[in-house]
Amino acid sequence: MHPFEVTILGCSSATPTSSRNPTAQILNHCERYFLIDCGEATQIQLRKFKFKMQRIDHIFISHLHGDHYLGLPGLLSTMHLLGREKELHIYSPPGLQEIINVGHYHSKTFLKYKTVFHVLEEGSRGIIFEDEKLTVETIPMNHRIPCCGFLFREKKYLRNIIKEKIEEYSIPVQEIPHIKEGKDLITSSGKTISNTELTTDPPEPRSYAYCSDTIYNESYIDQIMNVDLIYHESTFTSEMIDRAKETYHCTAKEAGMIAQKSNVKKMIIGHFSARYRDLSPLLSEAKECFSNTVLAEEGETYAV
Amino acid sequence: MHPFEVTILGCSSATPTSSRNPTAQILNHCERYFLIDCGEATQIQLRKFKFKMQRIDHIFISHLHGDHYLGLPGLLSTMHLLGREKELHIYSPPGLQEIINVGHYHSKTFLKYKTVFHVLEEGSRGIIFEDEKLTVETIPMNHRIPCCGFLFREKKYLRNIIKEKIEEYSIPVQEIPHIKEGKDLITSSGKTISNTELTTDPPEPRSYAYCSDTIYNESYIDQIMNVDLIYHESTFTSEMIDRAKETYHCTAKEAGMIAQKSNVKKMIIGHFSARYRDLSPLLSEAKECFSNTVLAEEGETYAV
Repeated sequence: MHPFEVTILGCSSATPTSSRNPTAQILNHCERYFLIDCGEATQIQLRKFKFKMQRIDHIFISHLHGDHYLGLPGLLSTMHLLGREKELHIYSPPGLQEIINVGHYHSKTFLKYKTVFHVLEEGSRGIIFEDEKLTVETIPMNHRIPCCGFLFREKKYLRNIIKEKIEEYSIPVQEIPHIKEGKDLITSSGKTISNTELTTDPPEPRSYAYCSDTIYNESYIDQIMNVDLIYHESTFTSEMIDRAKETYHCTAKEAGMIAQKSNVKKMIIGHFSARYRDLSPLLSEAKECFSNTVLAEEGETYAV
Repeated sequence: MHPFEVTILGCSSATPTSSRNPTAQILNHCERYFLIDCGEATQIQLRKFKFKMQRIDHIFISHLHGDHYLGLPGLLSTMHLLGREKELHIYSPPGLQEIINVGHYHSKTFLKYKTVFHVLEEGSRGIIFEDEKLTVETIPMNHRIPCCGFLFREKKYLRNIIKEKIEEYSIPVQEIPHIKEGKDLITSSGKTISNTELTTDPPEPRSYAYCSDTIYNESYIDQIMNVDLIYHESTFTSEMIDRAKETYHCTAKEAGMIAQKSNVKKMIIGHFSARYRDLSPLLSEAKECFSNTVLAEEGETYAV
């Protein structure tokens, strides 16, 4: 199986604590690296956990609260100073380009590489990135300002051709792609060999959903139904439900309810309020609704 | 003596390294805290070294290169979230307020406290802060964009009155401030008692000069003449003199020349290029010109 895994770089909400950084995570799919949110000190975290920042070509920013993007100007500058020439794609709600440009104007900075800003429309579900292996869709969140999550889905794998069958039926090279796509073989003598005899089932495509920040709402459950791994914000315990509502955040219990209703396989909870030094109450609460829950831990890598 | 000391929070130049953060330092004068520059992750460094960020009422930003201010938006936000109500004064070249405002506009942030932006004119020397104990002056630097250093000077101390003399001459309470200022005493019988009999010399006022970033130039030597402690940028070794000139920075040797020519008592060098893992070549080079030089070290506190 190709690698498909996410590493948490920061899992604190609004303010960093002595042990937790603001939100950022890096997704590795087949050695392509996607950065999701970029809180202050993300470049320092990337360095600490030994990720090569120049391998990142796509950055997804969920929304423009500082704890989700304030590390971006420094990261862009460091990429520039280290000699980057490759294009960089940045996806976010409206405004980020203006923020970056104002800083560059005053510092007289002209990046050596091209940045392409993709503006995400509020409330829309849509594919914002696609290549031969993966799609990325926005998941509309309900927060105080325009905000969206991101759903990374592998495309269907081709079927695995059984090597011995290539020899047995002298399959011509040009037929192999068609067989991998599921077609039967017609031999030179006109006989039809069923695809099921020639191939084995490919692995199931995997999916990862990043859901932060949002007040509890069930609008995206159908979209993330059955995903393999979900990261869900879980800012407060249920005691703080009023504060959660007021600030458009979720409790751990609510995150558990989302995971349970959307029938995901596994959930990481994160975006913890700085008030919690001990995170076990958040974990227990989420687990009451959805047992396969783990706490986000900085530097930790989770397979999708 | 009142405390007067500076703690280094970050001493890297343009990019952070695995062991050094972008520029920031905190000056404690009589338990009043002044922040000088505020590179990315300054709020994290303040927390790490156990400084109470709400005690900072004045922030001085030398210039608008990201490594000197990108920690400011996050720090302002954290001060707000922790309930700050006190006014905060921010001194910088033009543009910083616009940068902060654009971020707040897109995050719909309305700080609970008042921020007062003081715009520093390029190339001017002037007192930008003054209270009963201290003045802060700008030191014009020569960098790629408008930039200034900061000179913190204690005001003259009052003379120390000798307690026994108060009783001996039955000095009235209302006369004491005058005597501390250096006046003689005229007793009720009309006799003049010389001030030198009543008082001892106060401590000498101390001074600290922050000089970063700048290309080598001697224009500010007269201004920092005889200061007790100077922090001077020292981005490169002399081998890299061309790069230093091109980027408007100093070598360690040049920092040493400035310290020597301005007859300062002690120098901290900092703002090290990320290329130096071992800083001892920078130290040796500066010491050749000015022996009382030390390397900036994060978390270390230096008495003025």
